[in-house]
Amino acid sequence: MSASSSAAAAASLSEQPAVWARIRLADRRDVPNIHRLIFQMAEFERLTHLFHPTESSLSSTLFPSPPLPPFRSFTVLILELSGSPISNAGIDADEEEKLGFRPIVRRISLDVPVEDADSTVFASPQRDGLVVAGYLLCFPNYSSFEGRPGLYVEDIFVREAWRRKGMGRMLLEAAARDAARLGYGRVEWCVLDWNKNAISFYEEMGAEVLPQWRICRLSGEALGKYAGDDEAACGC
Amino acid sequence: MSASSSAAAAASLSEQPAVWARIRLADRRDVPNIHRLIFQMAEFERLTHLFHPTESSLSSTLFPSPPLPPFRSFTVLILELSGSPISNAGIDADEEEKLGFRPIVRRISLDVPVEDADSTVFASPQRDGLVVAGYLLCFPNYSSFEGRPGLYVEDIFVREAWRRKGMGRMLLEAAARDAARLGYGRVEWCVLDWNKNAISFYEEMGAEVLPQWRICRLSGEALGKYAGDDEAACGC
Repeated sequence: MSASSSAAAAASLSEQPAVWARIRLADRRDVPNIHRLIFQMAEFERLTHLFHPTESSLSSTLFPSPPLPPFRSFTVLILELSGSPISNAGIDADEEEKLGFRPIVRRISLDVPVEDADSTVFASPQRDGLVVAGYLLCFPNYSSFEGRPGLYVEDIFVREAWRRKGMGRMLLEAAARDAARLGYGRVEWCVLDWNKNAISFYEEMGAEVLPQWRICRLSGEALGKYAGDDEAACGC
Repeated sequence: MSASSSAAAAASLSEQPAVWARIRLADRRDVPNIHRLIFQMAEFERLTHLFHPTESSLSSTLFPSPPLPPFRSFTVLILELSGSPISNAGIDADEEEKLGFRPIVRRISLDVPVEDADSTVFASPQRDGLVVAGYLLCFPNYSSFEGRPGLYVEDIFVREAWRRKGMGRMLLEAAARDAARLGYGRVEWCVLDWNKNAISFYEEMGAEVLPQWRICRLSGEALGKYAGDDEAACGC
């Protein structure tokens, strides 16, 4: 996408009374945008000191060749916007069908024009005029009490300019739709206890917030010391 | 295993000043024991009203054919005990090597004889004289802040008769060893905030307990209503 067409896309988005939002599966071409989105999420969560991914690490870990079916392994959904109705152009429909995810498109009314200063940076790699506004990252987990898999949503993120317009809900609904379709028993994710807006939003969607469970984490040097933990063990 | 040899195994375990503990990969033959262990865990966590698995559901979801490499998908480790030193007998060493998990064996001293009333029920399907005492269930998760996978431990469980002997630690160390070997960034699990013994144990192992995160869960009817959530969406 050229700089001038990106600028035109940004202008067209901000002047519209509505945008068209599409959720599709990410692929390797989305890695630079995913990397930027994760950094913005780290800023929002006040955790930039914990931000370590590179485009290379994201590409090799999230997008194996050949790709795995969505929701069976690490899966990224991309939310992208257009000032005009979105058609199939730019999506390989056969491939989407084969991979098992049906893109979702909705028209979203805007009460006031949206100023998106980052729209050029977040141009979609798929087609001129589309701007990436958010993402969802998920993978299967397992509930032994259910005796079947569930879906864990690691990240749901919408860029600041596009929040409070139902796009986070749209992302989470997309994941819940496919989890239910696959017969998964639960969709789970985590929230920071100070993020009251998010908690209200999740409860409105029908989620319980579990008060008693705490996450334990072994990482860095504390994990590394188990790597060669064979002094008291014997292979047999 | 015959009832008489099971009884002999139980007697030999309880009379020894030590037991030999082995951790190995589970396979389909372990499903009846895994089912019983999950139920005992539900009893311990006061959550039997949430216990839903059947042997059939565990078998089909945990043990696909052909098997997947351990720690790349749902993985169950089995802890089993013997009153005499454990050798390779009963384990297909080539298969273990191929699958990428090296069994761990340790001798564990007993201060006092252990009364294990359930040892007959929990006879190992692998060999006479081995009794299953616990399990660990884990699967890969993903950290976008690390830009790489981690390992999530869904369950660590040791039957009551065999607790406080280092076997839970042995299970968790086995998972941490392979997570570190695979280059995973973290090992994570959850703990109930009232389980102070477990929290102390995890902190001694080097884990942080994260105070601010809460789990959100969409399940049952609340999840089901998203299954056909296409009234406002269009496939494209």
